[in-house]
Amino acid sequence: MNIESLLATRTSHIKASAIRELLKIATNPGMISLGGGLPSPESFPLALIEELTDKVLKKYGSAALQYDLTEGFIPLRKALIDYCKSIGITAGMEHIYITSGSQGFLDSLGKLLITPGDLVAVEGPTYLAALQAFNAYEAKYVKMETDDEGLIPESMEEVLKNHKVKFVYTVPTFQNPSGKTIKTKRREQIAEIIKKYDALLIEDDPYSALRYSGDALPTIKSMAPDNVVYVSTFSKIFAPGLRLGFFVAPEQVGRWMVIVKQGVDLNTCTYAQALATEYLTGDYLDAHVKKIISLYKPKVDVMADALKDYFPEEYKWTKPDGGMFFWVQGPNTIDMEDVSKISISKGVGFVPGKFFYPNPDDGLGTMRLNFTCVSHEQIKHAIKTIGDSIKEEKDKRGIK
Amino acid sequence: MNIESLLATRTSHIKASAIRELLKIATNPGMISLGGGLPSPESFPLALIEELTDKVLKKYGSAALQYDLTEGFIPLRKALIDYCKSIGITAGMEHIYITSGSQGFLDSLGKLLITPGDLVAVEGPTYLAALQAFNAYEAKYVKMETDDEGLIPESMEEVLKNHKVKFVYTVPTFQNPSGKTIKTKRREQIAEIIKKYDALLIEDDPYSALRYSGDALPTIKSMAPDNVVYVSTFSKIFAPGLRLGFFVAPEQVGRWMVIVKQGVDLNTCTYAQALATEYLTGDYLDAHVKKIISLYKPKVDVMADALKDYFPEEYKWTKPDGGMFFWVQGPNTIDMEDVSKISISKGVGFVPGKFFYPNPDDGLGTMRLNFTCVSHEQIKHAIKTIGDSIKEEKDKRGIK
Repeated sequence: MNIESLLATRTSHIKASAIRELLKIATNPGMISLGGGLPSPESFPLALIEELTDKVLKKYGSAALQYDLTEGFIPLRKALIDYCKSIGITAGMEHIYITSGSQGFLDSLGKLLITPGDLVAVEGPTYLAALQAFNAYEAKYVKMETDDEGLIPESMEEVLKNHKVKFVYTVPTFQNPSGKTIKTKRREQIAEIIKKYDALLIEDDPYSALRYSGDALPTIKSMAPDNVVYVSTFSKIFAPGLRLGFFVAPEQVGRWMVIVKQGVDLNTCTYAQALATEYLTGDYLDAHVKKIISLYKPKVDVMADALKDYFPEEYKWTKPDGGMFFWVQGPNTIDMEDVSKISISKGVGFVPGKFFYPNPDDGLGTMRLNFTCVSHEQIKHAIKTIGDSIKEEKDKRGIK
Repeated sequence: MNIESLLATRTSHIKASAIRELLKIATNPGMISLGGGLPSPESFPLALIEELTDKVLKKYGSAALQYDLTEGFIPLRKALIDYCKSIGITAGMEHIYITSGSQGFLDSLGKLLITPGDLVAVEGPTYLAALQAFNAYEAKYVKMETDDEGLIPESMEEVLKNHKVKFVYTVPTFQNPSGKTIKTKRREQIAEIIKKYDALLIEDDPYSALRYSGDALPTIKSMAPDNVVYVSTFSKIFAPGLRLGFFVAPEQVGRWMVIVKQGVDLNTCTYAQALATEYLTGDYLDAHVKKIISLYKPKVDVMADALKDYFPEEYKWTKPDGGMFFWVQGPNTIDMEDVSKISISKGVGFVPGKFFYPNPDDGLGTMRLNFTCVSHEQIKHAIKTIGDSIKEEKDKRGIK
């Protein structure tokens, strides 16, 4: 039987994620990878699991192993009311929904809203797995311009004025891939514009808890609650293997999302939700996040120093205030995919930045460098290797 | 912001599941429900969880909490090689994939194969959540006829001859909703026809481990391995709240499914997969399944006796050899939805059978009765109440 002959037309829009393929190479023995977006295994609260298990079994018993509401495990949704409050979002349980990772949110959102050919406004560059989720529903993209402070509000307004977009998708804090953060003033402008056009904005916020310097910023959700869906995840503050995300939305949006999600997975793993409930309601989160930050923060410094030492001076970057990535911008005369081939042959992987643009002709000279899943020594070695690979590629092309 | 104005055209095909809505009523205090398809909480190996947790933490450590391959947790896929062997399916790891419940499989399958308007061949009646998964991709259905021994091979051949269907979907053993089982002879005929037409058949098999009488039957997969995708779940033999399903497919099909699933949830809950691995590879499964059977088997007898005692004699049913449901067939002059309204008012819920047909005008006089999640006393009381409700509806309509 030939499966290719049976594929849906949409399937031609679904491709293997470049990152996933690179991650496969990254697992080759001896390879050092700055390519993934994996939290460090050291950041997981492994020592807590038995304690949490005990609490879950005592408190919820068999309910933690049963089918559950598509909306999410009620004790977890209740616990998230307080968590949301702590990050400045006022929400009742009727606004809070659990998904199978934030990826589960992105998939259901695409399914709910995107008719083939519909436009989605995204930052260039943007989160690759969001494109992957929306591609499956045959979305088209309009790029919103960014600078060192992230999304440019005027560009977003231009897009909303000239295009009928289904929604705006943004990662405002420590963006994946760019590490950039939209400051408060711009957030206010963005909220005003979204309200003015009565449009829908998705605020994807997986990283804001991982802040190494500077002060926490208000969410766009808090500034335009009726027009913004806020989505986040337990992957960075608890463990990604539990596959738990959540979103905060106007109730009407939540209800529609639930209907869509029913057909996708009935409900998100009840047992993982119960563990997360006890993690949130116990006195664990703050202490544990501090521990994660103390693990990651020095790595930022090590990578910044290494970039200074080993990269050609025309390559620019900004030290991120948080999150998991450095974004490096070089001249577009050198395609970073060529450089990555050289560095992989030397045992070091990273993701060329062009993969994060809806149009892959953009961002040829850019790259995303992850620092969370490697040691200080590995960071130095990897940055030196990539620096050498850039120089090799320059020599090959006769660029000085 | 008005979300209705942003919905995709496909969304009009997505409706809240009738069962889910009925389940909501079923959770009203004091309500006895034969409506769901929930395993009994007593069937969960709650006492094992601490032991399994201990093993998972020792064996896999932080890997059980990390992102993982979309294909599934490798130790679980390896463990499933032996499990498949035990049910007569020869498969290597490259044929075995993990999904977020079997619902996750159905969703990815629909996404991979169904272009709006494509035909899927289904039994009438069929599994409601499969229709729900495929509806989201705007499938159309061709009904294959069934009798007391399930799917009629000649009807399937007729459908394959006259229609271009993307795939055939069947639940051959203790079908949800009908409880019916296709015997070996018919399975052989079905396998031959599928090979003859070089078509794709989905063998959904959640219940075969729950056999209360008679001998195990060979899978259709074992008879036509290149044309059949076998899908099953841990929901009935371990716990549904873990949301773990798996499928066995030709490698080419598996690879495509993985590409689709990447965008849906990246990977299924790693931690739940690790627990299931230890459950499968430890010496737990056989003993535990025996325990589940000893819990459910007497309920079958209680329900059969109660139906004999309390239902009008024109209502027919067959005592199922396994699974979780009785299917009752009455005259189509009485719509079971009307009866269910009466019985709900008396505190007893069930699902009218018509919801399980692709065309809801079919099966007006049918009903599905679940017996796993209720006590013996509740079964008797519920069947008496539904019997009374039928008589009330008959009286109302002047039917003798």
